[in-house]
Amino acid sequence: MKEFELIDDIVGAFGHGDAPWLRVGPGDDAAVLQVPEGFELASSIDSFLAGVHFPTGAAPELIAYRSLMAGLSDLAAMGADPAWALVALNLPSPDRDCAAAIAKGLGEAARDAGVEIAGGNLASGSLALTVSVHGWAPAGTLLLRSGARPGDAVCVSGPLGGAAHALATVNLAASVPGCLSDAERSYWRPQPPFVLAARLRGRASSCIDVSDGLLQDLGHLCRASGVGASLNGASIPLAPDAGLGHALGGSDDYALCFTTRDAGLRRDFAVIGEITGAQGLVLDGKPAKGSGFSHF
Amino acid sequence: MKEFELIDDIVGAFGHGDAPWLRVGPGDDAAVLQVPEGFELASSIDSFLAGVHFPTGAAPELIAYRSLMAGLSDLAAMGADPAWALVALNLPSPDRDCAAAIAKGLGEAARDAGVEIAGGNLASGSLALTVSVHGWAPAGTLLLRSGARPGDAVCVSGPLGGAAHALATVNLAASVPGCLSDAERSYWRPQPPFVLAARLRGRASSCIDVSDGLLQDLGHLCRASGVGASLNGASIPLAPDAGLGHALGGSDDYALCFTTRDAGLRRDFAVIGEITGAQGLVLDGKPAKGSGFSHF
Repeated sequence: MKEFELIDDIVGAFGHGDAPWLRVGPGDDAAVLQVPEGFELASSIDSFLAGVHFPTGAAPELIAYRSLMAGLSDLAAMGADPAWALVALNLPSPDRDCAAAIAKGLGEAARDAGVEIAGGNLASGSLALTVSVHGWAPAGTLLLRSGARPGDAVCVSGPLGGAAHALATVNLAASVPGCLSDAERSYWRPQPPFVLAARLRGRASSCIDVSDGLLQDLGHLCRASGVGASLNGASIPLAPDAGLGHALGGSDDYALCFTTRDAGLRRDFAVIGEITGAQGLVLDGKPAKGSGFSHF
Repeated sequence: MKEFELIDDIVGAFGHGDAPWLRVGPGDDAAVLQVPEGFELASSIDSFLAGVHFPTGAAPELIAYRSLMAGLSDLAAMGADPAWALVALNLPSPDRDCAAAIAKGLGEAARDAGVEIAGGNLASGSLALTVSVHGWAPAGTLLLRSGARPGDAVCVSGPLGGAAHALATVNLAASVPGCLSDAERSYWRPQPPFVLAARLRGRASSCIDVSDGLLQDLGHLCRASGVGASLNGASIPLAPDAGLGHALGGSDDYALCFTTRDAGLRRDFAVIGEITGAQGLVLDGKPAKGSGFSHF
């Protein structure tokens, strides 16, 4: 099994669709894409490494699904509609079964998110995926971290802490694709809220995805906006079995945290606090310190 | 030195310019970009790993420069004008000097190629860079591998084999930035011919960059076009000290190989053979086998 046969295998397995914006898919020096007129692009890149971003020895299909979805979460955080992804894959050996499992996971995530896998790269190395994701929205409507203003409500799109609780209590390296418990699913099958993200355009003042723990990510948003936030711990929605600590300091939820004055959004989503003019985060009246994930 | 301080360090060191197409650069969930109306995007991704794509222990500044340029070479192969890149960096430790050297190399390559580094990712892992590169051209003018037709001349943009010769004869792990010999420079400072690439639009029938050896890469082009090629060994331009073997089977040159009937291009560039209706590559009248780089 040589490099180029393995690439043909992988591309054949995930297939690629007929999205009108993808003129040339995998197989040339680069993919050729068409961005709708009047739209702006959101572009991001993320790496996922064995033993760092996912448990060593876990099922390749689960790793691939989760890596692509976690990468695509950055598009939801921008209020962008997902359009295409490029995937750089490092494989330790030319293992056809492993490659097929990865292609299956990538293909499922791509279908679930509505993106085309437009191209990629294959190299020999420790198992790792790097995904470059691209989406769009009408020009001027993408959601930045920097637009929060004092008095805005702080909202989250769904329950937090589920993935962190699973990481702490479940042997995720032993998870079997197709037979996931709810806890395993919260870690391996993140579902960024792409439909909500589109609804936030023009309604939210700022947005970020919760990938490194609520306090750390909300801290990034507040620093970018030059504001602070006061949170009410009891109003933070928790995943089943998860504690407040999992939500505040855990990683990997891929829910959205956004700020807004829109009455409809405040009615439909959990309001967990308010943006303040004073810098820093306050939880139940006391200074809160971010303690989410950090490399190094 | 924590992850986010190191990121600030790196982004501060390579800086980012004021290209009109980059509305939001590093620091948000994704970069925000504007593609000119009537243009198509070319998008590609490449990974560069220590011990696979560059010698272990080499100077980080050189590794970074070469990795970004090698990635951007795919844009030249498409006839695309380079516009922006995303860079995912794995560092084994939060070494500020190493990060600064990588930022310097990335910044120099970005300036030389005219691209913005629009965003990136930092993770802990064995030293590696993955670059996602993006460029554009007026819709319908990007150069594919699939357009070669029998009777087209096969041309190369410059001398081949220099990087392969350097790899075979020089201890590239000991190269010192700022004091490179010509041989070291041919490996560490590849210069994809971006200006020529733009000139090829509408004039070349197909194009590929020579990154894995001439025979292997021309083989890809011929298969995509459903044709073959007959080459004249004596007309293949060689880098100083390089032999024909370095040019045919060596990797890393990042010259362009293109096919054309344009008289001006045939006059200005080395014509090394002709596209044939019969499949396969022929060199000086005998069947030639590709033997370029392959992972696995």
